[in-house]
Amino acid sequence: MALVNENYLKLQGRYLFSEIARKVSDFRSANPEAKLIPMGIGDVTKPLAPAVIKAMHDAVDEMASASTFRGYGPEQGYRFLTEKIIECDFEPRGVHLETDEVFVSDGCKSDMGNIGGILATKNVVAVTDPVYPVYVDTNVMDGRSGEISETGNWSNIVYLPCTAENNFIPALPEKPVDIIYLCFPNNPTGTTLTKPQLKEWVDYALATGALILYDAAYEAFITESEVPHSIYEIEGAKKCAIEFRSFSKTAGFTGLRCGYTVVPKECMAKAENGEKVALNPLWNRRQTTKFNGVSYVTQKAAEAVYSAEGRAESAANIKGYLENAGIIRNTLIGLGWEVFGGINAPYIWFKTPKGLDSWTFFDRMLAEAHVIGTPGVGFGPSGQGYVRLTAFGSLEATLEAMDRITLWHI
Amino acid sequence: MALVNENYLKLQGRYLFSEIARKVSDFRSANPEAKLIPMGIGDVTKPLAPAVIKAMHDAVDEMASASTFRGYGPEQGYRFLTEKIIECDFEPRGVHLETDEVFVSDGCKSDMGNIGGILATKNVVAVTDPVYPVYVDTNVMDGRSGEISETGNWSNIVYLPCTAENNFIPALPEKPVDIIYLCFPNNPTGTTLTKPQLKEWVDYALATGALILYDAAYEAFITESEVPHSIYEIEGAKKCAIEFRSFSKTAGFTGLRCGYTVVPKECMAKAENGEKVALNPLWNRRQTTKFNGVSYVTQKAAEAVYSAEGRAESAANIKGYLENAGIIRNTLIGLGWEVFGGINAPYIWFKTPKGLDSWTFFDRMLAEAHVIGTPGVGFGPSGQGYVRLTAFGSLEATLEAMDRITLWHI
Repeated sequence: MALVNENYLKLQGRYLFSEIARKVSDFRSANPEAKLIPMGIGDVTKPLAPAVIKAMHDAVDEMASASTFRGYGPEQGYRFLTEKIIECDFEPRGVHLETDEVFVSDGCKSDMGNIGGILATKNVVAVTDPVYPVYVDTNVMDGRSGEISETGNWSNIVYLPCTAENNFIPALPEKPVDIIYLCFPNNPTGTTLTKPQLKEWVDYALATGALILYDAAYEAFITESEVPHSIYEIEGAKKCAIEFRSFSKTAGFTGLRCGYTVVPKECMAKAENGEKVALNPLWNRRQTTKFNGVSYVTQKAAEAVYSAEGRAESAANIKGYLENAGIIRNTLIGLGWEVFGGINAPYIWFKTPKGLDSWTFFDRMLAEAHVIGTPGVGFGPSGQGYVRLTAFGSLEATLEAMDRITLWHI
Repeated sequence: MALVNENYLKLQGRYLFSEIARKVSDFRSANPEAKLIPMGIGDVTKPLAPAVIKAMHDAVDEMASASTFRGYGPEQGYRFLTEKIIECDFEPRGVHLETDEVFVSDGCKSDMGNIGGILATKNVVAVTDPVYPVYVDTNVMDGRSGEISETGNWSNIVYLPCTAENNFIPALPEKPVDIIYLCFPNNPTGTTLTKPQLKEWVDYALATGALILYDAAYEAFITESEVPHSIYEIEGAKKCAIEFRSFSKTAGFTGLRCGYTVVPKECMAKAENGEKVALNPLWNRRQTTKFNGVSYVTQKAAEAVYSAEGRAESAANIKGYLENAGIIRNTLIGLGWEVFGGINAPYIWFKTPKGLDSWTFFDRMLAEAHVIGTPGVGFGPSGQGYVRLTAFGSLEATLEAMDRITLWHI
């Protein structure tokens, strides 16, 4: 009889955001008149830029005529897009890439979930704590987690605590690790690393042969010049790092699905016999065999993000979200709370007042202020006592939420 | 140091279609004046139906305004689409499904590649021979293949020969297998199973606990009433089969990327301890963790395929392809060749004249008739001595290709 992948049976029943959705749904049923303001999930709300809309209409028209119709495209993405990505996202920062080092996909979540497929099960994985749950759950599925403890941590995963005490800068692992997930600007804490801080990680990876999986989905929100946008701004990073990018937050593509992954040809891991193996051909083989490319219409939309109009329009949207972030940050600081993030990221991470645990604060903010956040402990044990708010709402909703929290007697 | 998935190192260097592309490219360089007619890759050429184009324009306009903008959708697909799928593709055939048994994705190739992730590595896999290479390659990647032999077969995979001798009806496996890939109408042979023939496989799976992965990507080409469109037309199949569908060939979506997978709640596999495990929640967990749904614009396009106009327009396109198939079939039969498929499928599969091997025929047809086919042996050892032609070209190109083959002195 067919056997299931046993690792799936280890997964915890409820995914964080499903649990939040259930609590919100229960509250709505009991309080149908309450006007809730969602500041939990990191989904954008501003419409697509006019340049992107125009590019999509044009691409749809191309699909309507036999002479311009496009069928299967290259699984790795059209060159018109990979060339623009390199020209606009990397060249200005002194990072030189070839088009076959960039793989266009349906999003960062897919790629970060699938990348484990080209790596051995026995690799030891390190993640920051708190962390985007997908990194951990996908490694549970892939058999790298070991068993779960009472705290919710997995026995074979190395956790790197990030708290106010270390200013959210993870310390290098104390025991050897093979794969390191880093996300900066960070989800959920909204914090960043400077170039010298990121260089420590690249140097560690080069010295130990570890592979860094670098999630840069929020790079467009960086406002401070000392914060690197790409890990490849650090010397030697091409040898030890894969970088994941997304149009979701940069250009509001959460409903369109497009991102890309950079696998430099120099990036190496090794085989059991000790021989070095380049990861670029392995990822290429994975993508050409288990994936069939991104919609032509979506790729034309992504290309338009790099046009002069598209860049200006996307930048204006991000500026709007960052203004929301500033309002949230300043309001909570004004209340005397300990607040992080929100400067180079759309996320604000704060310590709950009165030492409340994350879920208690979440429940009370929902019930008493009608504002939905995300409990920090949902991202890992070190997130206990923290809550995340997102800046992706409208200005009006953000101001209203801050008024409610200011008037709220917590 | 990070270790790679060793299984990737077992994969053969060249994917069939890359090898063909290389040969074609070499020929074009040496013969720039030759007008080649491509009948190799199964890609559509007719533009999208007007109803689909209109739906996409409307959806793009929705993305342009904050009040109608769509961000993250359900990873499993919007209900407006899953409801239409059930209503139009299954209900008329007496198959009742719930919306959470249908998972919308970016295509059949992705799902057939990723499905192995929820199943144990130690399962024994059976495939027909010849076979769509993705089924085999993804199982090599997942560690289920064993080692390769000189014939190109893998030691742990059970092959079920399909040749003219058995009328392309695979015999039940002689030794126990856990997972069976079936594709009907078949790629590459274009042949089908009748309901009683498919029932034998369902009964075998029910008796042994095997899981059938049923690829029905070409169901829209079925013209004969005794051929089932869905495996769920066979009693008991919901307990033992997952079905994969695609809009690629049905509605010309190869460049848009949309398909769906049906995982009935009754469909079971088992855990190591012998307990039965439902596969629907496992696939749901996989898709919600390693995938983020399909573009809203694409899902609206797929919905439009089910409108009255969309259905009529798609049916007209398929009728056109089937007319091409009939022309190819009748021409080759007229030459005295042994021809299969092309009645319920866009593929024509024929024995090469004079007992030529597949690649020799391919090379000569390219060089002498300037027509590109696909060598049958590329799909597996039992494909030796066969060649596949596709009916996805224009009527003019199809007629021209048949004129050339008729005049060709092979």
